[in-house]
Amino acid sequence: MKLARFDANGQVHHGIVEGDVITAIEGDVFGDYSVTEKTHSLQAVTLLAPVTPTQMFGPGVNFETHLAMAAAITGNSGMQPTPEPWLKAINSLSNPGAPIVIPYDSKVGVEYEGECIAIIGAITRRVDPDEAWNRILGYTCGNDVSERDWQVNDSSTWRGKGADTFGPIGPWIETDFDPRRGGDMIVRIDGNEVNRVTTADMYYDFGEVISFISQHVTLRPGDAIWSGTSGRPETLQPGQVVEVEVTGIGVLSNPVAAEQP
Amino acid sequence: MKLARFDANGQVHHGIVEGDVITAIEGDVFGDYSVTEKTHSLQAVTLLAPVTPTQMFGPGVNFETHLAMAAAITGNSGMQPTPEPWLKAINSLSNPGAPIVIPYDSKVGVEYEGECIAIIGAITRRVDPDEAWNRILGYTCGNDVSERDWQVNDSSTWRGKGADTFGPIGPWIETDFDPRRGGDMIVRIDGNEVNRVTTADMYYDFGEVISFISQHVTLRPGDAIWSGTSGRPETLQPGQVVEVEVTGIGVLSNPVAAEQP
Repeated sequence: MKLARFDANGQVHHGIVEGDVITAIEGDVFGDYSVTEKTHSLQAVTLLAPVTPTQMFGPGVNFETHLAMAAAITGNSGMQPTPEPWLKAINSLSNPGAPIVIPYDSKVGVEYEGECIAIIGAITRRVDPDEAWNRILGYTCGNDVSERDWQVNDSSTWRGKGADTFGPIGPWIETDFDPRRGGDMIVRIDGNEVNRVTTADMYYDFGEVISFISQHVTLRPGDAIWSGTSGRPETLQPGQVVEVEVTGIGVLSNPVAAEQP
Repeated sequence: MKLARFDANGQVHHGIVEGDVITAIEGDVFGDYSVTEKTHSLQAVTLLAPVTPTQMFGPGVNFETHLAMAAAITGNSGMQPTPEPWLKAINSLSNPGAPIVIPYDSKVGVEYEGECIAIIGAITRRVDPDEAWNRILGYTCGNDVSERDWQVNDSSTWRGKGADTFGPIGPWIETDFDPRRGGDMIVRIDGNEVNRVTTADMYYDFGEVISFISQHVTLRPGDAIWSGTSGRPETLQPGQVVEVEVTGIGVLSNPVAAEQP
């Protein structure tokens, strides 16, 4: 099932997407809700980030092919994969279709990171990896937009990964997706594929990452756990359109824009 | 004026505190609200964190007397004060009077950091320091509880400063306080003063810190900007009561407890 959040004529609802039609639901998307008879054509609504997390976390290095790059940008040649998360600032949260804005005072521009995101469905505290899987509502796509100079030279990721518009997620939550069976995480720039990896290749799977975080941090419904990225991402140029697809979930598409001073 | 958030018989409201009485308000504490005729004795209600921020930020080193300690714990002897913030995880947010819980698997226990907090009152994006002051609703007290082993050895502050209960704030927002005129930030353990510094000694004042953050991160009503701490904090023991007072604002008091495995 595909759970989306959408704006129709200024009214925001959650809804269920089937083919080209979205049907509004009423109630708590994480609990009890009922399906209404209100339907819209997908083309007639604006899809929003499917949840509004209280927090977003991601492990820094979770794919073998990103290890060399991460070692290079951090200057740590002994870098190992870890479930240790960093925080992705909530103000970075952005909608499908919304522009990724390159700050005019960015030093080196921004890069994409195409990722799969687990959306927490229930209060989660000190659970083991097996139980962690039960606390996931479903999965969506995310673009962990990063400004590498800030990421390396600042003392935290507050703007390097947290500047406004650096965190588009969507287009919806797929509750039937299973990252252990593997979906391809694909990035396309202007339609050309530039990266592909399967979720099954995560060093630490979502169960392990969520269990690890939950030892000291209570996760809440809607919180977003990013997979980490793979490969060596490239710099985005204004005017490009960047897509993050996870096969079995959907496609998140965002144009790239330059901020004017 | 003192703006509090409180629970009276399971109902949560904002209210105005005068002496020993709290008067409920209706509406938007950041915008238009009206004062009701519902009053309670302060003793009869439970004070809550006065706001629920979407984000909390603080500069790492913002007082001269904390510089040596920060250099020691980070291993960076050339450390300089900076308005660069780190993110304090939102799950750490806690109420006045609520226990600070030392995780059973903490390596070195936890330390207090008594701080002053500016609460943002309006959308704030790319403002200069002068304008930043106009975006502050008021000030409260905070205890930036820290687990130093995690803070130093993890790759981010996600649990070192972000574990559950590590962020009590309160008891209310004082809208008439001016940190430029200086209030003393005092920490007491079981009634004994262990730290004191004036807000006027911040290297980067709140106007400068908020202006800096706002260049790349949009701040929203309720967001909390921590001052940074001073001195060399000490380890807290279960059973102690730790108070953070900022003169001219009020006293935030929290007991310390040990988590049971």
